[in-house]
Amino acid sequence: MNYNVAVIPGDGIGPEIVTEAMKVLDKVGAVYGHTFTYKKLLMGGASIDVHGVPLTEETLEEARHSDSVLLGAVGGNVGNSRWYDGPPQTRPEAGLLGIRKGLELFANIRPAWLYKELADACPLKKEIIGDGFDMVIMRELTGGLYFGERHTVTENGVRKATDTLVYDENEIRRIAVKAFEIARKRSGNLISVDKANVLDSSRLWRAVVNETAAEYPDVKVSHMLVDNAAMQLVMNPGQFDVVLTENMFGDILSDEASEITGSIGMLPSASLGKTKLGLYEPSHGSAPDIAGKDIANPLATILSAAMMLRYSFDLDEEADAVEAAVQQVLTDGYRTGDIYSEGCIKVGTKEMGSLVADRI
Amino acid sequence: MNYNVAVIPGDGIGPEIVTEAMKVLDKVGAVYGHTFTYKKLLMGGASIDVHGVPLTEETLEEARHSDSVLLGAVGGNVGNSRWYDGPPQTRPEAGLLGIRKGLELFANIRPAWLYKELADACPLKKEIIGDGFDMVIMRELTGGLYFGERHTVTENGVRKATDTLVYDENEIRRIAVKAFEIARKRSGNLISVDKANVLDSSRLWRAVVNETAAEYPDVKVSHMLVDNAAMQLVMNPGQFDVVLTENMFGDILSDEASEITGSIGMLPSASLGKTKLGLYEPSHGSAPDIAGKDIANPLATILSAAMMLRYSFDLDEEADAVEAAVQQVLTDGYRTGDIYSEGCIKVGTKEMGSLVADRI
Ligand SMILES: CC(C)[C@H](C(=O)O)[C@@H](O)C(=O)O
Ligand SMILES: CC(C)[C@H](C(=O)O)[C@@H](O)C(=O)O
Repeated sequence: MNYNVAVIPGDGIGPEIVTEAMKVLDKVGAVYGHTFTYKKLLMGGASIDVHGVPLTEETLEEARHSDSVLLGAVGGNVGNSRWYDGPPQTRPEAGLLGIRKGLELFANIRPAWLYKELADACPLKKEIIGDGFDMVIMRELTGGLYFGERHTVTENGVRKATDTLVYDENEIRRIAVKAFEIARKRSGNLISVDKANVLDSSRLWRAVVNETAAEYPDVKVSHMLVDNAAMQLVMNPGQFDVVLTENMFGDILSDEASEITGSIGMLPSASLGKTKLGLYEPSHGSAPDIAGKDIANPLATILSAAMMLRYSFDLDEEADAVEAAVQQVLTDGYRTGDIYSEGCIKVGTKEMGSLVADRI
Repeated sequence: MNYNVAVIPGDGIGPEIVTEAMKVLDKVGAVYGHTFTYKKLLMGGASIDVHGVPLTEETLEEARHSDSVLLGAVGGNVGNSRWYDGPPQTRPEAGLLGIRKGLELFANIRPAWLYKELADACPLKKEIIGDGFDMVIMRELTGGLYFGERHTVTENGVRKATDTLVYDENEIRRIAVKAFEIARKRSGNLISVDKANVLDSSRLWRAVVNETAAEYPDVKVSHMLVDNAAMQLVMNPGQFDVVLTENMFGDILSDEASEITGSIGMLPSASLGKTKLGLYEPSHGSAPDIAGKDIANPLATILSAAMMLRYSFDLDEEADAVEAAVQQVLTDGYRTGDIYSEGCIKVGTKEMGSLVADRI
């Protein structure tokens, strides 16, 4: 079968890491008898350079008509890039927000787990890590403060800025349903994070999550305040299985969760909507400083491609094979610089991609 | 000189821990020749029990006319307390929000430092901790999502909730000025945290912080996005000195920062406004489970009283004496249960208070 993949290399290390993910996908195709047809699209700084805007209507249309989107990373050095000269809606990151909204990708799935082989990189102490941890952050991605009405006005000479945090029950329910479905397939433990002691939107969030829970009697739900969640992630990450939260809290907590693994270069993500079309990208950024040097770690992008096989194409066996190949490469001792430790074999971006492909 | 202190014991362990702080203040009074006159006020659950509301106009008036406010903690077990039966504005925590706003305490100062003696309780690895860390989180406390207009409506049968994040430049400038003043007295390093790549309020925040910076050429300012800050706190806490941020981000980050010290039972806080009147409370909560058992750690409250001496009464020497006494008690090996480790001497709430008082 043929799958049409829109590939957005983006900026910084983006082009290098998506190349390795395509290499692995092609090997999957060869072994399992699929074809992946790639259509390269510009977004972020790369699009600004050519079109003057971070995301064109054409790119969005192409992405919309693909079977799935594979993204490297977008963005440059804020301090020394002309991409940041204009107002926010003209900057690279606006492309990312635009495609999320444009494709209605409301459910961002970000796993954070500890690799046994990389446990030394974890900033937490052994006593805290215990048997390790393995959680999935489900972040609402197309609502809340990110997409509410905003404006800055000057009243009597005083500047005043307003952002709006809005959620309706349908927006909450559709991501809650996805979270419950995923929790059901994992250990059946869902923690919904909000600030219900302050926010109306959080109180509605909590109510709708509880209503949804009635249809998933096999899933154990609890609620946690966001400030407490930020503490608990550090204190006892093992208690979390599926974490469900709104857009801004999810932005903060998913980054915190990635960081406590100590190996953000290894963590994939998926952004899903109502259809099978999804956007897959590594959890890390575009790392402009190390771009073009063949030293970036492509594993998060390769694992994002595995998520694509699973969620957009229902190719579970193939996804398992990619994940197993990545695991095997680690077991065999290969490491890019970011995850290197003594006694391992240091390899570059391209070699790492080939090592994974070889093991499929 | 006489100082009128409004004392709000609050709920849970609140009454026990403020008692020890008063014991220490009285010792300070005896040694340095001051009198502290206490007026006990009800707030939170304790006020609901008597008045049906978490904060009365009278309590607010009494607090407003005191020289400073010492608070234990408010709140109970959400699951099994009738304090939580009514709508949010009738619950214990509403008292806290009400007094912050009522007294215009816009600057919340929350230090997070690692005690050498308690470094074993820190959840981070030795390599991450390095030489330890010592930061102050300056959180805006009377604006943003906490106090913006909010409402929940049903439109065509669909519930929809809205919260509003508003800041005007004066609200930002007054807390920025406080943060720069504090940074100047410390290592001169200020990191302002926002989400300027998404929010209008954050862009105004950043602009006003930069404008304020012009008057503090001796302070080095930089800006960090909130998601990155949540990561950096875990990855490299030593890089932070003064952290300035808005209300909701400050709620999340200050709790994360407390937690990475591993000894939240030791961390004080101060909430300040335009005048000398401040509110001082421990960073931890009301811990209803251990209330009344003489096992709560009173040191955070005692250190909050030290902040009161310093910020509200300009009694720096006396504040230093309290901080030194707490340090001496730790050096001497005394610990409450929450910070106990082998080889130390375990003591209760009252004894801990006396041990500190004895050393002044
Ligand atoms: C680049 C930025 C707008 C984006 C976000 O905040 O969503 C990023 O931090 C992310 O998490 O993907
Ligand atoms: C109780 C709650 C409303 C409060 C807040 O969010 O400000 C608390 O978490 C705090 O940080 O003092």
